[in-house]
Amino acid sequence: MTDRADAIAARIETFIRAEVIPYEKDPRTGAHGPSDELVQELRDKARKAGVLTPHILADGSHLTQRETAKALIKSGLSPLGPLACNTMAPDEGNMYLLGKVGTAEQKTRFLEPLVSGKARSAFFMTEPADAGGAGSDPSMMQTTCRLDGNHWVINGRKKFITGAEGAKVGIVMAKSEDGACMFLVDLPDPAIRTLRVLDTIDNSMPGGHAEIEIDNLRVPADQMLGASGDGFKYAQIRLSPARLSHCMRWLGLAIRANEIATDYACRRHAFGKALIDHEGVGFMLAENLIDLKQSELMIDWCADVLDTGSLGTAESSMAKVAVSEALMRIADRCVQVMGGTGVSGETIVEQAFREIRAFRIYDGPTEVHKWSLAKKIKRDWKTDQPSIPAA
Amino acid sequence: MTDRADAIAARIETFIRAEVIPYEKDPRTGAHGPSDELVQELRDKARKAGVLTPHILADGSHLTQRETAKALIKSGLSPLGPLACNTMAPDEGNMYLLGKVGTAEQKTRFLEPLVSGKARSAFFMTEPADAGGAGSDPSMMQTTCRLDGNHWVINGRKKFITGAEGAKVGIVMAKSEDGACMFLVDLPDPAIRTLRVLDTIDNSMPGGHAEIEIDNLRVPADQMLGASGDGFKYAQIRLSPARLSHCMRWLGLAIRANEIATDYACRRHAFGKALIDHEGVGFMLAENLIDLKQSELMIDWCADVLDTGSLGTAESSMAKVAVSEALMRIADRCVQVMGGTGVSGETIVEQAFREIRAFRIYDGPTEVHKWSLAKKIKRDWKTDQPSIPAA
Amino acid sequence: MTDRADAIAARIETFIRAEVIPYEKDPRTGAHGPSDELVQELRDKARKAGVLTPHILADGSHLTQRETAKALIKSGLSPLGPLACNTMAPDEGNMYLLGKVGTAEQKTRFLEPLVSGKARSAFFMTEPADAGGAGSDPSMMQTTCRLDGNHWVINGRKKFITGAEGAKVGIVMAKSEDGACMFLVDLPDPAIRTLRVLDTIDNSMPGGHAEIEIDNLRVPADQMLGASGDGFKYAQIRLSPARLSHCMRWLGLAIRANEIATDYACRRHAFGKALIDHEGVGFMLAENLIDLKQSELMIDWCADVLDTGSLGTAESSMAKVAVSEALMRIADRCVQVMGGTGVSGETIVEQAFREIRAFRIYDGPTEVHKWSLAKKIKRDWKTDQPSIPAA
Amino acid sequence: MTDRADAIAARIETFIRAEVIPYEKDPRTGAHGPSDELVQELRDKARKAGVLTPHILADGSHLTQRETAKALIKSGLSPLGPLACNTMAPDEGNMYLLGKVGTAEQKTRFLEPLVSGKARSAFFMTEPADAGGAGSDPSMMQTTCRLDGNHWVINGRKKFITGAEGAKVGIVMAKSEDGACMFLVDLPDPAIRTLRVLDTIDNSMPGGHAEIEIDNLRVPADQMLGASGDGFKYAQIRLSPARLSHCMRWLGLAIRANEIATDYACRRHAFGKALIDHEGVGFMLAENLIDLKQSELMIDWCADVLDTGSLGTAESSMAKVAVSEALMRIADRCVQVMGGTGVSGETIVEQAFREIRAFRIYDGPTEVHKWSLAKKIKRDWKTDQPSIPAA
Repeated sequence: MTDRADAIAARIETFIRAEVIPYEKDPRTGAHGPSDELVQELRDKARKAGVLTPHILADGSHLTQRETAKALIKSGLSPLGPLACNTMAPDEGNMYLLGKVGTAEQKTRFLEPLVSGKARSAFFMTEPADAGGAGSDPSMMQTTCRLDGNHWVINGRKKFITGAEGAKVGIVMAKSEDGACMFLVDLPDPAIRTLRVLDTIDNSMPGGHAEIEIDNLRVPADQMLGASGDGFKYAQIRLSPARLSHCMRWLGLAIRANEIATDYACRRHAFGKALIDHEGVGFMLAENLIDLKQSELMIDWCADVLDTGSLGTAESSMAKVAVSEALMRIADRCVQVMGGTGVSGETIVEQAFREIRAFRIYDGPTEVHKWSLAKKIKRDWKTDQPSIPAA
Repeated sequence: MTDRADAIAARIETFIRAEVIPYEKDPRTGAHGPSDELVQELRDKARKAGVLTPHILADGSHLTQRETAKALIKSGLSPLGPLACNTMAPDEGNMYLLGKVGTAEQKTRFLEPLVSGKARSAFFMTEPADAGGAGSDPSMMQTTCRLDGNHWVINGRKKFITGAEGAKVGIVMAKSEDGACMFLVDLPDPAIRTLRVLDTIDNSMPGGHAEIEIDNLRVPADQMLGASGDGFKYAQIRLSPARLSHCMRWLGLAIRANEIATDYACRRHAFGKALIDHEGVGFMLAENLIDLKQSELMIDWCADVLDTGSLGTAESSMAKVAVSEALMRIADRCVQVMGGTGVSGETIVEQAFREIRAFRIYDGPTEVHKWSLAKKIKRDWKTDQPSIPAA
Repeated sequence: MTDRADAIAARIETFIRAEVIPYEKDPRTGAHGPSDELVQELRDKARKAGVLTPHILADGSHLTQRETAKALIKSGLSPLGPLACNTMAPDEGNMYLLGKVGTAEQKTRFLEPLVSGKARSAFFMTEPADAGGAGSDPSMMQTTCRLDGNHWVINGRKKFITGAEGAKVGIVMAKSEDGACMFLVDLPDPAIRTLRVLDTIDNSMPGGHAEIEIDNLRVPADQMLGASGDGFKYAQIRLSPARLSHCMRWLGLAIRANEIATDYACRRHAFGKALIDHEGVGFMLAENLIDLKQSELMIDWCADVLDTGSLGTAESSMAKVAVSEALMRIADRCVQVMGGTGVSGETIVEQAFREIRAFRIYDGPTEVHKWSLAKKIKRDWKTDQPSIPAA
Repeated sequence: MTDRADAIAARIETFIRAEVIPYEKDPRTGAHGPSDELVQELRDKARKAGVLTPHILADGSHLTQRETAKALIKSGLSPLGPLACNTMAPDEGNMYLLGKVGTAEQKTRFLEPLVSGKARSAFFMTEPADAGGAGSDPSMMQTTCRLDGNHWVINGRKKFITGAEGAKVGIVMAKSEDGACMFLVDLPDPAIRTLRVLDTIDNSMPGGHAEIEIDNLRVPADQMLGASGDGFKYAQIRLSPARLSHCMRWLGLAIRANEIATDYACRRHAFGKALIDHEGVGFMLAENLIDLKQSELMIDWCADVLDTGSLGTAESSMAKVAVSEALMRIADRCVQVMGGTGVSGETIVEQAFREIRAFRIYDGPTEVHKWSLAKKIKRDWKTDQPSIPAA
């Protein structure tokens, strides 16, 4: 691991602990996440501290995935950290995708405001399952696009569109005759109507998660990202790194929750001794230590795979399942160790528990990943390959 | 099981499904629970439907615990059901305790308004752990009472006092020179000051959970409940039935969550077939079926023990651990089956998950119960008794 | 529960503890189970103690399933108990089936020697999966029978035939043109050749589990059990009670293992105190207490369903999954509590662990039961029925 | 990782698959492990294949721990592999310790025969818990040594002494007035009497696990290993690498078990499709894939810590808990996937399950490691250190 990543990570940690954590009680975080005013206030601080968009260097190049992990884990130490540092979803993934696929003009117009932290973005892919739409199954996408002169006309409904409220940039996915397509759009646009912002168990993401309707949205042809029909290919490019960056940020949050629970268990007494001296509590903290380490190792391993240029689809599925389930156990133990305090908003442990519960669903529920891993195991068996070179 | 309980349970189920469930989207439920206006509106309906305080008969007698289970499980089918039917905590336990220990005068003045559903009550026992106070360890109670003429003067701090905001009746626990005491008080009282209502992961209980300060509260001597120094004895009387009634209500909620998840899994399709036809989903619903049945059986068994007149301390600890952990697994699976919808407020599954997470803490975290069961196992071993006649 | 069952159960417990347990170190139990000499020696003692075939009364009637549970749990307190008391698999199920379906002649010839404990029997149903045969999926049965004059001629291969070695009576399942058939046969028979007795993780069953070949076995027509083509119907009759009796016997074994582990944890010291005073140990024993009670309740509930005359297919699947998984957790904790002693043959805890591991496979692996429960849930959803009246 | 380790690992894998696996059905493996005749036959083959004691180079230097992991994991692919390659416990740890602490004379006399694979050794540390002895708690050691002229005289009892039967070299631990001491002894010696070889759930280790009595064993003073009173320090040196090498070997065995279960699931059909196409099976194999990868990563991480020169006590505790529990889950899933075949000796899956069950006890049960990790977490909290630099 390079020194530059260690330096960046250290700077982020200092910033989060000194400047972001005090904002955790700021009333501008509501049921649908922090307000954009709060986002901008935090980003101004991050800019001054030199930790804004820390994973993208001045020349536009990215840290490697292993380096990114160091930075993003630290940014996750507070639920507000990723948005302060501009390392949050879906922007981090959107910036990555734009950097890989966008034209120079597209980058100037859509990427730069994101990298500079002035704008937020949204990724319009998932669709409502109740309309026969996609849910976790992208093959069922129903939003359409058709060429009309020099414009594409898009129609459809999208759901769970994180950060759509307040976003300036949108990446919209739709199906043409060629297959899936992606478009860059300025937001807000009257043709993209928010039906509602969902109430969800988590509330760390600015703009929350919206259900929206796209009604004859007209997009100039040069705002298509890449080529018509290649949309799923681009989604694949974005997929593993975005999935892994979720793991990174939420690992940071779990580390923090564990710090709080450990401190609580060392200070409080019950039934004649410090909580941590009860094996029932101390064992849970020992299990947390192990789960945290294993999560870190899985992220580092998968990042290394991505850094070799592999799509890492199976590896990021493995990491996603392992890390999200481990972090859920950790957050649950933190709550349990802290008793009544653990289920209250007195510390961010309660929020960490809710956020991480959602993480087990976001970017594909655990079961969908196991399903695709089982398919891969069978394919590999047929060709006499080890599924993952296991040692 | 008697026919009367089946009849009551059927009436409650009809009432909940027809009249209470439509209120689940009512905006008068906020972060600190349903408003008292909403509570009264629902109770008026319950009164008309003949399902208000259904576990206490017209002559003041109670259903047996096994019968109560039938009724309370049904009242729990909606998060709003227990408050509509007046079967909720802490009132259900408070009414039970007053019925057992109160004088005739105390019953007229404090119990009747509760039974008629006109007033709510609170039980002031747990104390803040940060002040060196009790948490889950009652032996550490620090609130004091001393006799001053014909009044008792009470001072202390209490935390996690469910329903204190808006309650008309309080049962306050404090330590005299004789030991623990209990007092009946009219609320509100200026000497009982709400420091704050906690933000907690759950929000089904009117008034939420408050931290309060008692500053020279003067209580006439005839408002002492029972005798000075016997407070823990009374707490014991209340303990097991109240603990078990939590299991009953939340089992009802889990049954409902499972209905919703099953319906979702049977209607929605992904990856080529109905969700339930994916073993990854169908197995979770099968596990729910088993966990629901086991929870019901544990409740019935423990209720039967209580109906014999036993305090049932160990049995209710066993039931509390088994049921709360089983319901957590059920609620978690329901969320997982429903994916994005599961973590959203579109159905009550998301709330059920949050409520049941808190249940694993309330009335003693799982670990405290295991700790006391281990003590009991050792005691029984010494005297060569089976811990629980296991077959 | 009737007094007669309590009396029988008490008698069995006394017998097992006083007379059977001393035989647990008898070298006549080998890798393929206890020898038939040992079986007869133990049965002689059981006969004298009045506990041989205790669930079948002198008039040929059976105890109810709930009563049977009381008796069989006690017989399971030693791995040798069920064979001593003649309550073991597959005989218990075979006697039940013969009692229900056999003709008077068949009962005299085949059932009486079983009830009197003079003979053992085997049930030839499961087939080797490697030959494209059945495994857990009975629809794939490949053994055939065809009528040739007044005899049926049977050909095929069977695997996991428990107790075949040394059995005097066989029930053989095969497919005719009408469907599945069952036949009663005298054993040994040169047309039924043992290919080998499998080495398996368990070793409590006399005769072990054999793979056998049936080569032109000729069976007189009057030895068909019931009617041609009704074999699966009879298998269904045998299914749930036999499945449940597994739960009963192994619950007994788990109760005993838990007694041993508790005694160990109360006597031994490490790191400054009795093992049980370490929460890491005490909590495991508390969890055992809960799992034991839940297992007992599931058995009792399912037995009650069967006693109403229901086939109880879903209920016995639920009980089988819940009980086998719970007993595995219990046995595993007992081993863990006892450390090195737990993985050694010094106590029967090590054997209990191995036996119960096999139990999770025998009579259908957990996954097969969940699969059929999921199917049932879907069917019930379609017809708007609760899958199991849950409360 | 260096090329040399990859080359060694590849050579070992080829050897195990081609030459060792065919011996798995050899009848010379009994309840107390493979016979020494079989050991020598396999070692002759390993010598010829250039894979005997592969982790110790010709100059006596060792591979790094990370390199050792590569080699030992491969040697573990068969239960017979470690003894064939001379990478098994306790020899591997004993050789490591002798290499670190022995004098030149001691190395010539005691280490060389071990490295050359001509002799086996045993480590006499653990004591019977029933005599008030140590169990997992070394502070309770009761075996004594006292100087008598130029000899030490040792008395005591030891239990679970792996490989004592048939060993040529012993390392005996005893307490002098200075504290713990270690001695090198030639075996057999009439003063070291085998009371019995325990029957245990595992049977991969030659000589099994013995209980022995030491009765006035006289050891020349120059056979003391290191200095009097420093025995625990030496035990510490041996501790983490030996513990980690257990993880390596058993990971190899779990990899193999998973290969077998995967192959089975891909070939066999039930209920209309290949087993692996049932999510209930495919998900288990996906979980195995993740658990295998996590085990490998934990081993590599801990090995890296040891390679820096750290004692790695906490890290090897973390690795031991994580890996042994993960391998247990893997082995259990393999058994379950394979149904009846999984609990039979037809493949080594059944043995892998038994061996790995014992592994959760050997070298300290999971609970003892959690206990010491909790102590460390508290110490680190007091000094404001992160317990394990988690990211």
